[in-house]
Amino acid sequence: MAGAEAITEGSTADYIPELAHVPKDLIALTVQATSGKAISVANIPEHPATTLQSVSKLIPLIGLLEEFGADRVFSWVNVEPSGSDFASIARLAQFGPRPSNPMLNAGAITLCSHIPGEAEDKFRWLDKWVAHLFNKKLSINSTVLASEKRTGDNNRAIAYLLQSTGSLNASVKETLDLYLTLCSYEAKPQDLIHLPFLLANGGVNVDGERILSDDTVKCTLAIMGTCGLYNESGSHMVKTGMPAKSGVSGYILAVVPGKAGIVVLSPRVTKKGTSVRGEWILEQLSQQLGWHFALQ
Amino acid sequence: MAGAEAITEGSTADYIPELAHVPKDLIALTVQATSGKAISVANIPEHPATTLQSVSKLIPLIGLLEEFGADRVFSWVNVEPSGSDFASIARLAQFGPRPSNPMLNAGAITLCSHIPGEAEDKFRWLDKWVAHLFNKKLSINSTVLASEKRTGDNNRAIAYLLQSTGSLNASVKETLDLYLTLCSYEAKPQDLIHLPFLLANGGVNVDGERILSDDTVKCTLAIMGTCGLYNESGSHMVKTGMPAKSGVSGYILAVVPGKAGIVVLSPRVTKKGTSVRGEWILEQLSQQLGWHFALQ
Amino acid sequence: MAGAEAITEGSTADYIPELAHVPKDLIALTVQATSGKAISVANIPEHPATTLQSVSKLIPLIGLLEEFGADRVFSWVNVEPSGSDFASIARLAQFGPRPSNPMLNAGAITLCSHIPGEAEDKFRWLDKWVAHLFNKKLSINSTVLASEKRTGDNNRAIAYLLQSTGSLNASVKETLDLYLTLCSYEAKPQDLIHLPFLLANGGVNVDGERILSDDTVKCTLAIMGTCGLYNESGSHMVKTGMPAKSGVSGYILAVVPGKAGIVVLSPRVTKKGTSVRGEWILEQLSQQLGWHFALQ
Amino acid sequence: MAGAEAITEGSTADYIPELAHVPKDLIALTVQATSGKAISVANIPEHPATTLQSVSKLIPLIGLLEEFGADRVFSWVNVEPSGSDFASIARLAQFGPRPSNPMLNAGAITLCSHIPGEAEDKFRWLDKWVAHLFNKKLSINSTVLASEKRTGDNNRAIAYLLQSTGSLNASVKETLDLYLTLCSYEAKPQDLIHLPFLLANGGVNVDGERILSDDTVKCTLAIMGTCGLYNESGSHMVKTGMPAKSGVSGYILAVVPGKAGIVVLSPRVTKKGTSVRGEWILEQLSQQLGWHFALQ
Repeated sequence: MAGAEAITEGSTADYIPELAHVPKDLIALTVQATSGKAISVANIPEHPATTLQSVSKLIPLIGLLEEFGADRVFSWVNVEPSGSDFASIARLAQFGPRPSNPMLNAGAITLCSHIPGEAEDKFRWLDKWVAHLFNKKLSINSTVLASEKRTGDNNRAIAYLLQSTGSLNASVKETLDLYLTLCSYEAKPQDLIHLPFLLANGGVNVDGERILSDDTVKCTLAIMGTCGLYNESGSHMVKTGMPAKSGVSGYILAVVPGKAGIVVLSPRVTKKGTSVRGEWILEQLSQQLGWHFALQ
Repeated sequence: MAGAEAITEGSTADYIPELAHVPKDLIALTVQATSGKAISVANIPEHPATTLQSVSKLIPLIGLLEEFGADRVFSWVNVEPSGSDFASIARLAQFGPRPSNPMLNAGAITLCSHIPGEAEDKFRWLDKWVAHLFNKKLSINSTVLASEKRTGDNNRAIAYLLQSTGSLNASVKETLDLYLTLCSYEAKPQDLIHLPFLLANGGVNVDGERILSDDTVKCTLAIMGTCGLYNESGSHMVKTGMPAKSGVSGYILAVVPGKAGIVVLSPRVTKKGTSVRGEWILEQLSQQLGWHFALQ
Repeated sequence: MAGAEAITEGSTADYIPELAHVPKDLIALTVQATSGKAISVANIPEHPATTLQSVSKLIPLIGLLEEFGADRVFSWVNVEPSGSDFASIARLAQFGPRPSNPMLNAGAITLCSHIPGEAEDKFRWLDKWVAHLFNKKLSINSTVLASEKRTGDNNRAIAYLLQSTGSLNASVKETLDLYLTLCSYEAKPQDLIHLPFLLANGGVNVDGERILSDDTVKCTLAIMGTCGLYNESGSHMVKTGMPAKSGVSGYILAVVPGKAGIVVLSPRVTKKGTSVRGEWILEQLSQQLGWHFALQ
Repeated sequence: MAGAEAITEGSTADYIPELAHVPKDLIALTVQATSGKAISVANIPEHPATTLQSVSKLIPLIGLLEEFGADRVFSWVNVEPSGSDFASIARLAQFGPRPSNPMLNAGAITLCSHIPGEAEDKFRWLDKWVAHLFNKKLSINSTVLASEKRTGDNNRAIAYLLQSTGSLNASVKETLDLYLTLCSYEAKPQDLIHLPFLLANGGVNVDGERILSDDTVKCTLAIMGTCGLYNESGSHMVKTGMPAKSGVSGYILAVVPGKAGIVVLSPRVTKKGTSVRGEWILEQLSQQLGWHFALQ
């Protein structure tokens, strides 16, 4: 971690003011090989729980894939890398109406509108899938949620544009409430390791139980591998070879298929929203452990 | 193959008239597992050699990576998926001057301008790398080359735009001569299997000799996995999980890291330049043999 | 009018369902030379009042220019023709944050957010300027207003995008209420002639009273001449030479500086929202009366 | 002129190195009212002749309009303001194949490909129209022409893109030779006044002879009024109300229909290629003489 601590580039995202309250220099890492137990380390042992932000986009994607299948889900949203930033409305306006992929805000918002059930049931659906994927309950950080709601105009613009072309399956208000709630789940890295472990282990948990179908694992990792870091996905794959999903809070969930799940958290992020030290750590793991997918 | 033959969508690309002379319904496949020998099948046994087209973009990428290293090469061209089609000049004009990735025409043209040597030496460099990567000499189809030169105005526009921003390291004429020559190498699938096999086998050939460095294999597969099929790369990875490179002649080179190299050729292509039957065959192989990278 | 009646291209805009209730074949024309009285003709004498739609964008532009001056107003919105359609959000996202011009939805929405006063006062401000510019009160068509509100998601997307970049001076809700109300003023052509007459007569009414400043007249006509018909402004000026403002209901207000004001109404519009027969009539007037500005 | 001399913003365009040799602080003005003789003033009386640059785009436009008529010419190029800069290839790639308007490089290059005749005849055609429009012969600055040819890669990119979509009526080489020659005609302001005078006087010269048709004058002034200064056309019309054409050498030709032709030359230009002091002078003339078209 000394290497990572030497990196002082990047800063916490300022458009969600609450994120500035996380210790900027935190580095926390949890790794679980498919053959073993989770190991966690952190340079600030008593660090607070941190919101998942865009890492949460995996939740509706996986839940809907399991419940509706890939054909239905990919009739709502495309799966192509976009070459644009996570919140790009120009891309949606020019190439839409269907969002380019489920990792962009437009795609994740669209998927939230397809969460089944009425009113509160939809929030229960989120809780259910959070519990299923992380094997524990996560709580909502209501201060961050309030902060998101106060500053979410770009997402509102995206949602109304989607609604204007008939791409939403629920009202803008209901859809954004779900989307912003989703971003506000909070956890520590060790609380999140179950999902990347599952994806690395073909959808099967440590007890040998199938938790996710083969198909869902394939779709999810392919999407993480091509669009998980928006317009840094290509250089991320060159350096690490690990399908991953980043969040602007500094989380990265990464998967080494067949070998390991990884969660890293470090709040200094690039302008594109990727943890600077987190990427450095993934690159080191990839190189030193031969975990680049190209060398499997 | 019966399944593939039932597909009658797609047609041969019409902007290179010579391509129309390949038998449209041809399906030819070569597969080589890392543990075994190459196996080839075709529905038209005596089919002619076919030009590589964009599959050749791998040649300067790999040759330059080996000779100059990733840092130098990626200072000339980015490695991000672009969300645009292979010949997009709008993308280059809007997001340039550096091309988005080496699989787009703009990126491959830029790389051709960095091929070392003077005049004819550069063409010898191509022959050298062709021989190294495919373990045999390939010849140039001079009729296709003439056809490319006659119809290459979009590529000329790209090259002059690159030159206007100082992105080329050689003259437009010299650079395009190399680029169009590159596209005109011709072969049968069995002639091409050596490269995807090498990439699947970590850069080492059947005799255990290292032919490509680890680093080159990692960069190349990451780029194939995120940008190898342009704006069909995402859905290709969802369906097959195989890093691959397509060519408008109907070739697809695909790699199952650690397991197998694949070459498939079938000339009916989508509007985005991907072999329709070729993709179907890769999808079948992925599903039936468990070759999706997510399930390694 | 026989010539105009022979034209059967175009149809009423379908995204505001209420507009379909206007008689599609109506042609109504009012002309007032600076030297004379207004003359009105119509092929359906008892036609209903019709909403102004985008023609109303002139109201906040002129009112704000008069009250705040050009420097202030053009710090809120640019005055460049955009080459994009009236509702383009891609343009705003790519070239913003400041809207390209006050005739685009984004520009008019921005101007509505700068209407002075609190709450109901702002609506009174609109009524005041309507009365000033048209020399009579106009009423709101509440059915059209309801229709606009129900279908206004693209405008909501624009407004939230503007708010996300700090370009609005009032809440999205308040701003859109004003904007949609503005579009719903209704009138017959003879009710609207006062404004184009004023602009043709240098801001002075028939009684010789100055109603608008020189500066406002200059700014308004320059904007109408370059952006009044969005991405049909260039061909409109080639054919007619008359600065003008179109509305999707089929209205065009046109000005022949120094010579005449014109209001024409005919509901068949192009995909870009311009009255087909209305343009034809303006072209005839321009040619037969020598009213092209180039020949003044 | 004291006011104009106080302005020190802007500089000579650096992409045509020869332009840097013109005295940067020169201000030269020629005005000819339709009722009188031309009057010329300059702060550096013995200043050298300066190349016309984009002002020359008027020559093929007017010549072709006279010889082929508006319908033919506007089937080759649109007449819409583009909201983009003069050399935008992104716009052409996205909205083409037909160029947006004849004042953009893409539009002027397209028109050059339609100049009639074989080989040298086409250059004679240019000389003929130069003599007709300016009532004198102009010579070519061969140093500037060489400079243009050496640095014209962006224009080559545009021309090849046009050729790739079948928009050119002659070879790229021949077309660009004509286009770059066109830009290299040189003159002093008093040598150029005949054309704006003609356009101000409805196509008729001082002796009452008709030199240009009504139709050509209308089309030309409408295009100058909407696209003559690219994406500064709107603010130019707000400030001056004068249809005009700018060139990167610092020339602006402006027309007050019915009243006067104006040529101003001052080499400091904005990033968009408009003479800074030239615009200031036009604005003063417009205000002090009531020459804004809105107040005719």
